[in-house]
Amino acid sequence: MFEKTTRMNFLIDIYDSLLTEKQRSYVSLYYLEDLSLGEIAEEYEVSRQAVYDNIKRTEAVLENYEEKLGVLKKYQEREQLIERLERRLQEEQVLDNEVAGLLQQLKNMD
Amino acid sequence: MFEKTTRMNFLIDIYDSLLTEKQRSYVSLYYLEDLSLGEIAEEYEVSRQAVYDNIKRTEAVLENYEEKLGVLKKYQEREQLIERLERRLQEEQVLDNEVAGLLQQLKNMD
Repeated sequence: MFEKTTRMNFLIDIYDSLLTEKQRSYVSLYYLEDLSLGEIAEEYEVSRQAVYDNIKRTEAVLENYEEKLGVLKKYQEREQLIERLERRLQEEQVLDNEVAGLLQQLKNMD
Repeated sequence: MFEKTTRMNFLIDIYDSLLTEKQRSYVSLYYLEDLSLGEIAEEYEVSRQAVYDNIKRTEAVLENYEEKLGVLKKYQEREQLIERLERRLQEEQVLDNEVAGLLQQLKNMD
């Protein structure tokens, strides 16, 4: 019904604290735990259409936050820079444990 | 009246797109352009108390976003890591133009 995307997984991960409990439950079950619309509808005793509509609205809410704050976009840009830096330091043969550890921490921070 | 803080300047910079137009105007004039409450009240033809109350509420809104999303906190943690990396690479004498440029881009990205 929706295209289950990595992008939506990222957006949920970043902005889920700004969602209502119901919004968070539905999109998490659908995108993160890969349940079907029918399975979620059954669990919450609502119609499949109600689940679909709620998820569709939540997607728009998440995209709206991303448009305003751009946390995912900046994360992806940083990832690219860190990888370029990593390659460059590998070439220079200075990627010792400490430097590699700092780069890894930078990556994990997002 | 408030303590005009660097922290609030950062929070406005990060989250201002989530504020209403009035909220954004008042806190920007107060924190970023350093106008007094009285000056803002005069400009908008409202009471000084109204400006104060609005700014106080907006501060809480901004702190609430930061508590939920932690963009500033992560930014500060990344800054520290980047500085440690920079010092380490300086010691190793591999901070050439390209590496320094990549680190600078990483810093500027936030």
